[in-house]
Amino acid sequence: MLVHGRHYRTIWCQEERSGIVQIIDQRRLPFEFVVEDLVSVDDMACAIADMHLRGAGLIGAAAGYGMYIAALHAPRSSPDAFVEALARDGRRLAATRPTAVNLEWAIKRQLESVEAAGTDPEARIQAALSTAHLIADEDAGFCRRIGQHGKAIIEEISRRKGGKPVNILTHCNAGWLAFVDYGTATAPIYAAHSEGVAVHVWVDETRPRNQGARLTAWELGQHGVPHTVIVDNVGGHLMQHGLVDIVIVGADRVLYTGDAANKIGTYLKALAAYDNGVPFYVALPSSTFDWELRDGVRDIPIEQRDATEVKEIEGLRDGEIVSVALTSADSPAANYAFDVTPSRLVTGLITERGICAASEVGVLGMYPEKRR
Amino acid sequence: MLVHGRHYRTIWCQEERSGIVQIIDQRRLPFEFVVEDLVSVDDMACAIADMHLRGAGLIGAAAGYGMYIAALHAPRSSPDAFVEALARDGRRLAATRPTAVNLEWAIKRQLESVEAAGTDPEARIQAALSTAHLIADEDAGFCRRIGQHGKAIIEEISRRKGGKPVNILTHCNAGWLAFVDYGTATAPIYAAHSEGVAVHVWVDETRPRNQGARLTAWELGQHGVPHTVIVDNVGGHLMQHGLVDIVIVGADRVLYTGDAANKIGTYLKALAAYDNGVPFYVALPSSTFDWELRDGVRDIPIEQRDATEVKEIEGLRDGEIVSVALTSADSPAANYAFDVTPSRLVTGLITERGICAASEVGVLGMYPEKRR
Repeated sequence: MLVHGRHYRTIWCQEERSGIVQIIDQRRLPFEFVVEDLVSVDDMACAIADMHLRGAGLIGAAAGYGMYIAALHAPRSSPDAFVEALARDGRRLAATRPTAVNLEWAIKRQLESVEAAGTDPEARIQAALSTAHLIADEDAGFCRRIGQHGKAIIEEISRRKGGKPVNILTHCNAGWLAFVDYGTATAPIYAAHSEGVAVHVWVDETRPRNQGARLTAWELGQHGVPHTVIVDNVGGHLMQHGLVDIVIVGADRVLYTGDAANKIGTYLKALAAYDNGVPFYVALPSSTFDWELRDGVRDIPIEQRDATEVKEIEGLRDGEIVSVALTSADSPAANYAFDVTPSRLVTGLITERGICAASEVGVLGMYPEKRR
Repeated sequence: MLVHGRHYRTIWCQEERSGIVQIIDQRRLPFEFVVEDLVSVDDMACAIADMHLRGAGLIGAAAGYGMYIAALHAPRSSPDAFVEALARDGRRLAATRPTAVNLEWAIKRQLESVEAAGTDPEARIQAALSTAHLIADEDAGFCRRIGQHGKAIIEEISRRKGGKPVNILTHCNAGWLAFVDYGTATAPIYAAHSEGVAVHVWVDETRPRNQGARLTAWELGQHGVPHTVIVDNVGGHLMQHGLVDIVIVGADRVLYTGDAANKIGTYLKALAAYDNGVPFYVALPSSTFDWELRDGVRDIPIEQRDATEVKEIEGLRDGEIVSVALTSADSPAANYAFDVTPSRLVTGLITERGICAASEVGVLGMYPEKRR
């Protein structure tokens, strides 16, 4: 999407075969737009572990490009030594975010593509590069298709409103910064905006890490999409007063029964949407589906993160990103990272294949190959 | 309540007739406990306008003591000049927070008490002091009685849980810092805690001004009440998992039909409580009732405050309270201050007279003199 009027993805090769992978250092956003060069596996491991980049789709793509860098620097002395070095670097990358399933998946896919390329080091490097591009392109393609399907819903609301701006509420950042391009929750918004449909986005700031205020607001602003930042407490009031036409959020995990785990606070917005008859959609690529668990509230484990994220916050002061304390040092705090929205509150799921009901029948109807 | 082991109210006379009124400068909390001396009407006007103190009950008491200071300094040349000066100071105080109804009410009451005291300046000053104390004592008395009535609900839950800690969620600060003592939402908690009932309070940080994280957490901590600060997004998740036994909040305005306006985000917690069968109570003194309006969502005007409160936040850095930017300078933001919780989501109202249903029948049954 656009940054300072120029098109960017979240990860790319500086020049084909230069060996330099570039990313946007998201820790500096929205205060500073910094493009970072990654030239070694250590660089990439650090970028993933220290969250220069984040988001399921982008982490998968980063692992793909990380393995390309690994192939570039692997010893050419013997085909086995090459593969061994690659496997070692893969383990190094996989250890950076142990719970990110896309990471392991991309590494495994790279190891297979390199082995399939024969024993010539050049052919192997070329295979690793092609596969890295392919992983990134697939991610962007999935998001683009989510955008096309979701756009239809926004267009329909726009028609009903006689072309007046469609007010969309979103939570956290399920934007292009979390993927390679387009995002999931934002993809329908960008698609509608591109075709001249008037939209306005209410951006939940999304405490404690403020990915809404910092990332979603920034990417919408750069792309020219009208938006307004609100604190997480506001959405219910807006819906009571007809100021939200649709809620679209992303997800960290969606069960095949339709229950959706997403950033903490999503459930509260789903309740308010339901109470006010506002449609509530979850946008996701099919890689986010969990085909095993049945009951989200009961079965999905919810991570508790460090309480420091609640007790302190980062912001800009005198041109520098600093952390300030929000509570007394003595105040205990707890930091639940996600919550689960039961399927009964979800109007529909927007996937790369189309829109389906948030139910076993709906999801398995869209993905019949997953029927058991 | 207790601060550093000593009992405090939020406003008091340093010594009887010293002419020095003391308050806690709440802008410094929770980082620093500063007691401020107020010796002139200007001091008091500044303390109210610049929010050294806030909260309906406390603002009323501050106006009462402000009028006592005014009487101390009024000219004794003639009874008329005395009253004229007092009226002028009253207008000065009333202008500090034009929407605070308690302010005007307390000033009017003081003017009446001074006029009723005859023409002797000493008698008038004594009347102003007595009335200031009376206003403060009445506020504390109302809150104490709210505590006694609400305590019974907590005790009942405690019995049902076999004495295990009762988990109470609260939003914003309806604590003793917003009144003269005890608070409203906190009064039942303090009362239960005093009698040895095990309680634990989930404290919503309450963006954008973080009165929960800064004030409620501090006052509970000082009084020795177990508590945990959470971001506003967390409450729904806690209720889904049985970690909240009861929600108690305060209110800015409660209609006689039971609809309750309170700090933005209250409605979201009420929805989650309803969805999970958690009792949701609003605690209020009867001065908070609105006997005119019928439909809260439709009729209660919701103030929009400066967007800076969303885009920036105050915190402690290197021992200094500083403000940091949370968004890009370009990001538009909106700041709705309150929302309305419809009566259908409210289990009951805890007033100084007792507990009643959040309905016209319930409220007018408790306050029959308001029947028309």
